[in-house]
Order: sequence, then C-alpha cells, then structure tokens
Amino acid sequence: MTDEEQTPTTPSDPTPEATGLSRRGLMGLAIGAGAAGLAVGAGGGFAGGAAYGQDQARRAMDATAAASGIHQVGITTPVQDHLHFASYDMMARTTRDDLAELLSDWTYAATRMMQGLDVSATGAVGGSPQAPPDDTGEAVGLPASNLTITFGFGPTLFDARFGLEGQRPAGLERLPAFLGDDLDPLRSDGDLCIQACADDPQVAVHAIRNLSRIAFGRATIRWSQLGFGRTSKTTAAQATPRNLFGFKDGTANVLADDTAALDDNVWVSASEGPAWLVGGSYLVARRIAMLIETWDRTRLAEQDRVIGRDKGQGAPLSGGDEFTKPDFQATDAAGQPRIDPRSHVRLAHPDTNGGIQILRRGYNFVDGTTDLGRLNAGLFFLSFQKAPDRYVTLQRSLSTDAMNEYVRHVGSGLWAVPPAPAAGESVGAGLLGA
Amino acid sequence: MTDEEQTPTTPSDPTPEATGLSRRGLMGLAIGAGAAGLAVGAGGGFAGGAAYGQDQARRAMDATAAASGIHQVGITTPVQDHLHFASYDMMARTTRDDLAELLSDWTYAATRMMQGLDVSATGAVGGSPQAPPDDTGEAVGLPASNLTITFGFGPTLFDARFGLEGQRPAGLERLPAFLGDDLDPLRSDGDLCIQACADDPQVAVHAIRNLSRIAFGRATIRWSQLGFGRTSKTTAAQATPRNLFGFKDGTANVLADDTAALDDNVWVSASEGPAWLVGGSYLVARRIAMLIETWDRTRLAEQDRVIGRDKGQGAPLSGGDEFTKPDFQATDAAGQPRIDPRSHVRLAHPDTNGGIQILRRGYNFVDGTTDLGRLNAGLFFLSFQKAPDRYVTLQRSLSTDAMNEYVRHVGSGLWAVPPAPAAGESVGAGLLGA
Repeated sequence: MTDEEQTPTTPSDPTPEATGLSRRGLMGLAIGAGAAGLAVGAGGGFAGGAAYGQDQARRAMDATAAASGIHQVGITTPVQDHLHFASYDMMARTTRDDLAELLSDWTYAATRMMQGLDVSATGAVGGSPQAPPDDTGEAVGLPASNLTITFGFGPTLFDARFGLEGQRPAGLERLPAFLGDDLDPLRSDGDLCIQACADDPQVAVHAIRNLSRIAFGRATIRWSQLGFGRTSKTTAAQATPRNLFGFKDGTANVLADDTAALDDNVWVSASEGPAWLVGGSYLVARRIAMLIETWDRTRLAEQDRVIGRDKGQGAPLSGGDEFTKPDFQATDAAGQPRIDPRSHVRLAHPDTNGGIQILRRGYNFVDGTTDLGRLNAGLFFLSFQKAPDRYVTLQRSLSTDAMNEYVRHVGSGLWAVPPAPAAGESVGAGLLGA
Repeated sequence: MTDEEQTPTTPSDPTPEATGLSRRGLMGLAIGAGAAGLAVGAGGGFAGGAAYGQDQARRAMDATAAASGIHQVGITTPVQDHLHFASYDMMARTTRDDLAELLSDWTYAATRMMQGLDVSATGAVGGSPQAPPDDTGEAVGLPASNLTITFGFGPTLFDARFGLEGQRPAGLERLPAFLGDDLDPLRSDGDLCIQACADDPQVAVHAIRNLSRIAFGRATIRWSQLGFGRTSKTTAAQATPRNLFGFKDGTANVLADDTAALDDNVWVSASEGPAWLVGGSYLVARRIAMLIETWDRTRLAEQDRVIGRDKGQGAPLSGGDEFTKPDFQATDAAGQPRIDPRSHVRLAHPDTNGGIQILRRGYNFVDGTTDLGRLNAGLFFLSFQKAPDRYVTLQRSLSTDAMNEYVRHVGSGLWAVPPAPAAGESVGAGLLGA
C-alpha cells in the first residue's frame, strides 16, 4: 500500500458512488460512530434490496489482475510466502440481493488491494475525521506484495435463502467423513471463503481484515487460518519447499504453465459445467495437525518409508533424484518393495488413482504451543481440482497411508471457485445472474 | 540452511564429542527409537552431573555472531521480519549441572543455526538411518535469514533448585500487577526464554523447535508466540513500521547505533551489576490483545487523539512531521491541549517519565479468529531495558492511557538477558560459574 505521497491523486468524494462500495459496504467500514450517527458521511442507512441494482451499475471495476484472465488469480499464480484464509457465513435473514451486493463490494475492494491501493479512495486517513477510516491502515507504506484474493462458494450457499437450490453442482456438498477425521466445526465449512496470499503476512492479514469489515450486515467470519512457507511448487523455477515433517512437498505438483494438465485436472470445462463455473475450479481446504513431537522421535529410515522418498533429496526410494518417476515395482535384495505400498507417495500417486492429479497450494502453520507444551502445528492443505470427487478419491486412497499415524485432519472445507469476473462485473455474477 | 551439496564437508562422527552436544542433548534429538534402544548411536544413557564438566570442556564454540560482541545478538540487530518466542520451565528434579549442560547445548546449537547450519554435524539426514535425525529438516535449503537467538533467565530460575538464590538481581521478580491486566498463566512467565528472530518464519520456527528438542529431560516449553511485521525501528535506515491499529509504531525508539542512549537505557553497567549481567539487559514480553473490531469502528479523530499522533504521517498532534518532538504544552484556538494528556504518546514519553527510554522490539501477531469471529490479534510487545523498574514506571504511567480501552494485556514475562558468552563459553557461564 502506498503512503499518501505515493498514492495517485484521486478526487476525494466520500459518497458511495465515488468509492465504488455499496452504502452497506461503506457502513461496514464506517460503523461505530454509533449514537453520534456520523457513520456514513453522505447518506447512511442500509441500501436494501431495491437500491442494489442501481448502485451496482455505477461500479465499474478497475483494470485488475482478477479481471485479466478466465481464471481467478491465486490458483496458478506462483505461490506466495504467506496466507490468510478465511471462511464466512451469511448472516440470518440475508437475501440474494445482499449476497450480490457483498460480492460486488468484495470484488471492488479486492481489486484495489491487489493493486496495492487502500480499500477505498479515501483510504486510511482521507475520509472525515468524524468517521472511522475506510482502510484500517496497517498496510500503508507496504507494496502490494503479490497479493492475490480468491473467492469461493460453499455448499451451504446453495439453499433457499438465496434462491440458489437449483444451481448447486452435484458434487458441491460437504466432503464425506474420512477415516481418522477429527474435525472441529469451528475450523470447517462456511458459506463463502477468501484465500488471501501475499509475500508479506501483514498485507494478507490486511486484506482479510478489511474484507471482513466490508461484509458488515451481510456475512461474518466463521474461522480463519494463517500460514507461511508454501508447501508446493507451482512453477518449474520454484524450488520444492519443505513441510514441517522436514520433507520436500509438492515435487509432483501440477505446474502453472502446464496448460494441458491444468485443463485435465483443475479447470471446470464447458462440458462439465455448470455454466457459471466454467473456467473455475473446486477448492479443498484441510487443516492437518502434525504430531510433531512423535514424528521427531521417529527413525530416519521410518520417516523415509512413510513418505516413500528420502528426506535429503526427495528422491523416490526406488532410486534416482527428486524428479525421477517412482517405480512401485522395484524390489530390494530380499524381494521386498523398495517403496512401501502404504507409503504416502504411492497412495497419492496418479498411477494409484486412475491418473488423478490435483493442484496443491498449501502452507505450513504454527499456531504457537498447546497447553501441553506441544507445537500446535501442521499443514494447511489447499488444493484445486475440477471436481470434488477427485479429492475424495485421493483421500480415500490415503486411508491406509502410513503417514496417518503422524497427522490428524482437524478442519475441512469445500468451495466452488468461480471464474474471474468479466470487466465491470463482480465475482459470481454468472451464478447470481446479476 | 544448506542442502547437503552446499554444506561444508564435515567429518561425520555421530559421537557426542564430534557434534558438540551433550549426550543428553543428543538424546533429545534422537529419543524415540524407544524399545529398540537405538536412540543414541554412540553410547546412550544420561550424562548425569558428573559427566558434565568433562563433556563441556570438549565443546569449543564455533566462531559466531553470538560470540562476536559484548552483548547477545537479537537486541540491537536490525529487527527481522519474523519472530518465534518461547518460554521454558526446568523440569522437576533438575540440578545446577543439568542447567549448565542445557545452556551449553543451547549455545552450541544456536551458534550453528545462526550460521545457517543444521543443529548438529549429522544434521537432517547424515546420522544413522536407525535413529531419528538430529535436525528436523524443515530449514534445509533455506538461508540463515539473519536468524538471531537470544536467551533470558526468568526470576523463578533463581531458587534453591540451582543454588542461585543469592544471585538474583533485586529487580528480577515477577512484574507487579498493572491496572487492567488480564494475564493468562499459560502465556506468562517461565524459567528461561528464547527469542528467535529471522526474516523467514520457517527458520525461526525451526530454531525454537530444535532447541526445544535439545532441552529433552531438562526443560519443557511453557508457551510460545509467533509474530510478524516488526513494530519498531532499530536503525535510522528502517522505515517505521505500522502496528495493527494502523499507526506507525516505534518512531521514538532507541536506535541501535546510538551507543550513548543504549548505555543510558539498555545495557547493565558494571556499577549496576550483578557482575554476571554486565553488558546484558532485561527483557519484558507482553502479549497485548487488541480489540480490533472496536478500534476499527472508532472515528479517525478519536484514533488520533488516543495515540497523540496523526495516523497518516505519525506526526505529533502538536504539529510537524513524524520526527518532530511532541509539544505537550501546545494548545488549540479553544485553549485545549493539542495532544491529549491521556494520549499514548504523552504518557509513554521520556519527558513524562523522568527521561526513561526503552528499546522496543515487538511484533504484530494474528492467531486466527476467535470462536466469536473476532481476529485474535494484537501486539507481542518486547522491550529491553537496563532495569525492570524502568518498564514498571512506564507501564504505571500508562495506567490512564486512553488506549487502554482498546487493548488487554493477556501475557507477561520478565527475563534477565546475560551478555554474549565469551569464545568457548556458554551463555550464562558467568552466572553458573562454569
């Protein structure tokens, strides 16, 4: 975000029209003058359904990364160093118009923030001193830091509240229970999700914080998760990072420039539909707690066996280097498989799962220490795939994974990720018919 | 940390002597072969008190940043981007020899890690496949990232367990209760502390994780805290960062090259003693939860009034720019003070506190979202000062701070930070007479 000196001069006009946010979005930013009634400089009050269409028409999106392609950013974008992921629930008694207005406001604000701008034209200090600032200000002076903001729609969004019962894709339902799941409802699911990735955690946190404020009166945050140290490579140039087990993670990921693999595995095609989701994808999030202390006391040979690769180079135990294809038939002198059939690499491999690949984009997390003095740490797994059943197939394959002794899945969510909005439209416009 | 290819070739010898860790330190790294009894390649068993002196003599420290000055690193080192701070308690029935051995092991491992090396010569993959690796491996391939590791001794360390009753400095006691404290014992205090700062969070986490493992049988982690986005400047070249209230924080901090100010405010002098602490300091940690949602709904003018500076530039409300000295006598046309007497800047200012300055080195934290959907966020305040009563004076001055409406102190700790160890010695050698 730029300091005032660096901000392109913008005519300062705190009306909803000039900022591009709905009156309610502005209210979310400005609420709190409370009894003084000074919250919204130019008008105040709730926009309500009727006013929505009128306001929306005035909101032309700025040119933006989000609008520059078929797909939303943050999927094949080279993985940034930091994550703030948030899940939201629509509030009681909200309507389809409320949802459309929220998505319009979010699109507008996200577009600005991804350009390194404050959340509105008046920003952190340019509004009335008698109102809370539109922007919370902690990113002022920081660069955009490759911020990407990616939106998703959860299964629960497709109900009578919003008249979307008929538009739910068949596969968009709560993920089935998997063996060993120990899910916390307060770390799972949600009507909507936002994935904010940036190379500076303060920029990612700023994005989620301000989008949460804008959601005022329409959606509330259900849970959120910070992450660091990406656990996947999405470009050939990126070195394969290491997860908190100390192993390289993401060696065989789908690469962002492999358009054929992306079409085969990630993007929803026209024949797969529904129409509003073509060019989009499905996002799975899993909070996977690692039993760090147990793992750390495990013999190196056992760690290698569990993963099916060597810890140093990440080469499959059948030989070669990191990028050598694993040979699951290879045996040692005693006739035993070199790669354990229950190893993670075998059970997750496309050859074991009918060719299925997913685009992983996860992060490590450490949320301090538990009351028992253990690291509260693990992998915040994120993957994009063209159909939820692909993840389900993989995760079921992993039900006998030797790694399960060392991990617990404690959070879970699934969202449909629509394509990028067309210029001047909001994310999800295809779904809402707006 | 370097990949194997990049690691300077070191004769690989997994005996305690070669690695520089005590047998128990190695046991901490290697424990877990369990019933198989293969934990410690060359010997195993506990060193016990008698063996300590013998082992210690063999452990010459490598050349290191930690040994290169009078003061420990991580105090005047330009503030890095990320923090993992951990507090430890000595285990029941541990002795003075155990403590000395632990500090020797920690010094050795910290010295290696600050050079970008694995925690031992065998590292993440160079040991026996039948033992857990010495190093947990997640920092392999990452640079040292300006890692600094700083050790502190809490008031509770100075008791009969370790024969240190007579050596506790008078001021080293639990901080007094302050107005509005809401302290969680599981986020407060501790016999020992380690501050790990680095420009990569994975490197800071790796340091705390491996130092915790090495503490096996001697100390256990009590609590830990991650942080990002430093909230202080310690060199003139660093821009003043912003805290999560969106304000610049640390404008008037003591600078690392202002040796006179450091001598006056931070370092314990020979006349102040005790002798083992000369060249050291006292570290205060406070977990300060920010009521983010309340703050975000506060008018800009009120935010400015609370801080006493303007949000955009950080200039005092008496006028000028960020670095202009505040004029607490200045009045407006109505005769009212331009800077509110209850503002944070006035109550924290040296002029209000007999000239006291402290060296702040805090970080922002966001630990996800509470069950109520609020950001679990704030400031992890860290400060260094030559005497604890200086912090106490400041914090008492802040008892009427207008900012108190928006913050809660939920964690607290005080530690004496000894000077850097001399070459070949361990941190705290002056205290333990080792």
